[in-house]
Amino acid sequence: MSSIVAVGSLAFDSIETPFGSVGKVLGGSANHFSLSASYFTPVRCISVVGADYPQTHLNELKSRGIDITGVKLSAGKTFHWSGKYGYDLHEATTLETRLNVFETFVPEVPDTYKDSEFLFLGNILPSLQEQVVSHLPKAKFVAVDTMNFWIESQKDALLKVISKVNCLIINEAELRQLTQTHNVVKAAAQIRAWGPQLLVVKRGEYGALLFHGKEAFSLPGLPLSEVKDPTGAGDSFAGGFMGYLAAQKQATPTMATLRQAVVYGSVMASFIVEDFGCNQLLKLSKSQIDTRFQMFRDLTYFH
Amino acid sequence: MSSIVAVGSLAFDSIETPFGSVGKVLGGSANHFSLSASYFTPVRCISVVGADYPQTHLNELKSRGIDITGVKLSAGKTFHWSGKYGYDLHEATTLETRLNVFETFVPEVPDTYKDSEFLFLGNILPSLQEQVVSHLPKAKFVAVDTMNFWIESQKDALLKVISKVNCLIINEAELRQLTQTHNVVKAAAQIRAWGPQLLVVKRGEYGALLFHGKEAFSLPGLPLSEVKDPTGAGDSFAGGFMGYLAAQKQATPTMATLRQAVVYGSVMASFIVEDFGCNQLLKLSKSQIDTRFQMFRDLTYFH
Repeated sequence: MSSIVAVGSLAFDSIETPFGSVGKVLGGSANHFSLSASYFTPVRCISVVGADYPQTHLNELKSRGIDITGVKLSAGKTFHWSGKYGYDLHEATTLETRLNVFETFVPEVPDTYKDSEFLFLGNILPSLQEQVVSHLPKAKFVAVDTMNFWIESQKDALLKVISKVNCLIINEAELRQLTQTHNVVKAAAQIRAWGPQLLVVKRGEYGALLFHGKEAFSLPGLPLSEVKDPTGAGDSFAGGFMGYLAAQKQATPTMATLRQAVVYGSVMASFIVEDFGCNQLLKLSKSQIDTRFQMFRDLTYFH
Repeated sequence: MSSIVAVGSLAFDSIETPFGSVGKVLGGSANHFSLSASYFTPVRCISVVGADYPQTHLNELKSRGIDITGVKLSAGKTFHWSGKYGYDLHEATTLETRLNVFETFVPEVPDTYKDSEFLFLGNILPSLQEQVVSHLPKAKFVAVDTMNFWIESQKDALLKVISKVNCLIINEAELRQLTQTHNVVKAAAQIRAWGPQLLVVKRGEYGALLFHGKEAFSLPGLPLSEVKDPTGAGDSFAGGFMGYLAAQKQATPTMATLRQAVVYGSVMASFIVEDFGCNQLLKLSKSQIDTRFQMFRDLTYFH
């Protein structure tokens, strides 16, 4: 097993969906990613929280084996995102973003993290993502996530990061926006030309699609009778995907391993969407994860 | 092998997509369904055309083993649909519908069709679909397709047909509209409560989802680098799906057979979307069909 360094946000989320609403639940890309990946491999977190962040949750992260040496405690308030979804849960409308302590955040990589071979760059300012890459020279497998906001406002910096990573993990709509290409096969070829050998396209309830060289793997979403809130699904997916890869210690994973990793990512995402917040990712058992893996097999196999 | 009776339209289509436009190509639900199913089993067609319909195409249908005894030749013009798609090819905007000879069409079932055990009710007026069901008492497997227009204007008649069939094949948006339910799992339970044991949800580029009792099978779409026109994809899917079932002679198909049938349906749909019109369905070889079946396997398997 190889450890993963994850950089991203620890945040409060206030969320409205047609199925309910919550105020200030625990969220953020580093939170969802780390919890999800922790079921597969040790995780080392880099983030920042304010004085209002609950110590109990930091303890919960630690109790899941997540190293929080790299989580800074700053004076001020924790990052707070407010968003809303319609029945089509694919895209959130941001109601308010209070960056708070994130406004001046500069990620620092603790010395004890520097032997990590796997790195996940959660959705933060591209230039900060790039700094983290440069401070982890032993990282052999680096994946990056991003969002429409950075594609619009920081495209050059984002393309620079993308050129330095092995894997881009991105929503389908954002892939189209980034490449200015509607056809996903052509967009994938564009991404490969920019550097990454691997592209994972997240399609919400329709699942995920992985491109690796000339090969592709597509997994539909699990049909769930309760879907309340998609917040964190993408980061939970990335956590399961990379967590599984890191656990296999394959810095150059085979296509067979990548296929399984997409399934484990989708398993973790399927848990997070069933309720608001991140509580589902605090108390899973190996048997629950294995059961969902089998559900994906039952859903998709044919002879 | 068991023959299938297919009722639906033979039409001219004029189509605009972001990838081109065509005027008066050969289309219609019975056309796409019959051509697609003809690669698997004999098809018996019920429809109507006007004096302007090309005899050459009727000969093409015959040369594919399609029985056109039930195709009426009427004075007047053939049904002509004009529609437009945006980059999101999921839903067409109808620009014009000239029913022409379809306005007074009453499907009649030739005596020579009456031993058929499989019946496909293409997207026409629900009360006409019901008439055909009542004239084919030996049909053990009946599938029905419909569209938003009938859901809005003929819901009671449509529910009556649905209550009499084994299988509903429908677009995802239309399933939601018909059941007034956003969640697809809950919508599927509603359809089962109305009668059909089987539901196939067509999801365009995201593939297809089949519900059978408590089991589900989901197949993603094939990532294609050229998609020009989705017109006829749903009927081509239905043709491959039912054609394969009829070829197995299983009036009560097993789940394993249903899974394969969804793949064959998706194979046939993947050919039709690559170009305008129906020419792709006139000249396929068994090896082209088998190659695409294998592409779906390569795309979806994992261990």
